[in-house]
Amino acid sequence: MTLENVSCILNNYPDGMVTVDNMKVVKSPVPELGENDVLLKNLCCSIDPFMRGRMRENVKSYVPSFEKGKVMQVFSVTQVEKIGSAVTDINVGDKYMCFNGIEKYTVLPQQVIKGDGKQSLGSFTKIDQRNPIKDSFYLGLFGMPGMTAWAFFNKVGKPKEGETIFITAATGAVGQVVCQLAKLKGLRVVACASSPEKIGFLKQALKVDEAFSYRDFPDKKSFTEQLRKVCPNGIDIYYDNVGGYILDSALEVMNIHGRVIMCGMISQYNLKDKYQYTLRDITSRRLTLQGCLFNDFFPQCMGEFMQDMIPKLEKGQIIYKEDIYEGVEKAPEAFIGLFNSNNFGKVVIVP
Amino acid sequence: MTLENVSCILNNYPDGMVTVDNMKVVKSPVPELGENDVLLKNLCCSIDPFMRGRMRENVKSYVPSFEKGKVMQVFSVTQVEKIGSAVTDINVGDKYMCFNGIEKYTVLPQQVIKGDGKQSLGSFTKIDQRNPIKDSFYLGLFGMPGMTAWAFFNKVGKPKEGETIFITAATGAVGQVVCQLAKLKGLRVVACASSPEKIGFLKQALKVDEAFSYRDFPDKKSFTEQLRKVCPNGIDIYYDNVGGYILDSALEVMNIHGRVIMCGMISQYNLKDKYQYTLRDITSRRLTLQGCLFNDFFPQCMGEFMQDMIPKLEKGQIIYKEDIYEGVEKAPEAFIGLFNSNNFGKVVIVP
Repeated sequence: MTLENVSCILNNYPDGMVTVDNMKVVKSPVPELGENDVLLKNLCCSIDPFMRGRMRENVKSYVPSFEKGKVMQVFSVTQVEKIGSAVTDINVGDKYMCFNGIEKYTVLPQQVIKGDGKQSLGSFTKIDQRNPIKDSFYLGLFGMPGMTAWAFFNKVGKPKEGETIFITAATGAVGQVVCQLAKLKGLRVVACASSPEKIGFLKQALKVDEAFSYRDFPDKKSFTEQLRKVCPNGIDIYYDNVGGYILDSALEVMNIHGRVIMCGMISQYNLKDKYQYTLRDITSRRLTLQGCLFNDFFPQCMGEFMQDMIPKLEKGQIIYKEDIYEGVEKAPEAFIGLFNSNNFGKVVIVP
Repeated sequence: MTLENVSCILNNYPDGMVTVDNMKVVKSPVPELGENDVLLKNLCCSIDPFMRGRMRENVKSYVPSFEKGKVMQVFSVTQVEKIGSAVTDINVGDKYMCFNGIEKYTVLPQQVIKGDGKQSLGSFTKIDQRNPIKDSFYLGLFGMPGMTAWAFFNKVGKPKEGETIFITAATGAVGQVVCQLAKLKGLRVVACASSPEKIGFLKQALKVDEAFSYRDFPDKKSFTEQLRKVCPNGIDIYYDNVGGYILDSALEVMNIHGRVIMCGMISQYNLKDKYQYTLRDITSRRLTLQGCLFNDFFPQCMGEFMQDMIPKLEKGQIIYKEDIYEGVEKAPEAFIGLFNSNNFGKVVIVP
């Protein structure tokens, strides 16, 4: 008896907002098992925002583009249903976390599952079924989103008790974990989502301190006012899952030495043009943009600085150009010169 | 005989681009010395871009606003010319780095100089005259700009031999130091300034690898093309002193894990409106914007993650909301739902 497969393929690349027509569901017979093949029954497949980035043709990114006409590969949990006669070390019933197609069944050579073969995306990781974790949790709480939430929150956010964290897409795959980790750590949690139902969930189930719908504040100005109201002591950590004007608003309300965890920018993924000032690239390139002020480094670095620089000056390794103005009267001119490139070197007034 | 003083006061607050009329130079007699007073002859005063930020009325910032009608206080080197009869531990000839007015002379109570009194800005730091450093260098190479260059480059930039650094305002008070530190450290240095004269200085005196005038590339598109040409391996560190479209261009050419040292945004300081996406605030608030990708944290954090999270789940400290779709057919709908807030919780397909 031939099994029937149902698969979701990429139909074509979206131009701007993704539409239903960009994907297509097709039926096909599941191929016969070769002696080295494994028949997998996919238990669950994950749908994640970063998939949108893969629906672009020939774009260099940290994950390859989906191919037109092919099944879309996503985070999945799959279970071995049947094995070929020559398959070893893989048993019926084994479960794996993997990248696999959005489809009912998949037939793969055993090498791929064992990691001997080549697979474009992450390897198959066998699930320890003694863990008290249901299958789908390997795609969520214990999968990429949950691990993302945990790692970015702890390692990048460096949270401290009593701080205020603001979280967008707060009921999403990542956000809800962040909300809870932050509460456990003793932070004041301000969360944002889209509907009254979600707001209720955030307040009642997750016990966040403040929750509101971004739909009530549809532009930067009103959103910023709302943020100032619900974050009277400013924001110490912004866990950004949305980008766009909400990121801009949060930046306005951030405290000194605040951390913006740029986890994703879902509001931007369907734009035809890039986000105007390329903030989006900060994420994909894992850039660190750190604002700096002199006050943060001195006087504590003074000694090290002098020790390093005086010999460099004495050895002539360092020269220094100055633009010296005689007379206090020149101060305005000297100052204006900073903005029209009229000065050359360090501007100094000799009064 | 009464000494005549010449002082530069803030005449009024600029509205947009600062003009000469915003400042005014005035003459006045130097007051008689009281028994606790010190007469200072100011040897040199620094003119720095951050002064523009102080020419705003009632703005909360890391340094207070200049006061209308008052002498503008700046980084200065000053020397004791005369002391009152009751002054102790301060001698004629002593030199200090300090914040002091842009003026010929200043009379101050000895407490201010000793740090016993209150001064709104940094304290008076006595200069060790045995150092082989000329006075004005305490405002430049060994003052705020030079220390800024050194600290931000080393501590924030974390430079590595062979990397490419891009530096704007490269002949300025900060930039020229960065260019040289970077060359000494074995980086490939690409520098930007405004005139052929400065470009010549960068190439011949500072020996940078590439230098060009931003005036030849007056918009984001042409500037980005130029950057790609002179940085064929991308930019690892951008030492940003200008902001605006040049920052936007540099972001496009940054390498993964690149560091943007946001030191200043001189192109923005005279704008009436804020920089559109508030990037400017990253500097004044010393924010760290760190783009994050899952790949950077896993699998290495996997163990710690599981150890921390499994007990939390078992204790019920963590709950997790899912939005489960039955059937591959639901995949498109589920995916679209990510962008229109129709999903609630972690989206999962059960195929």
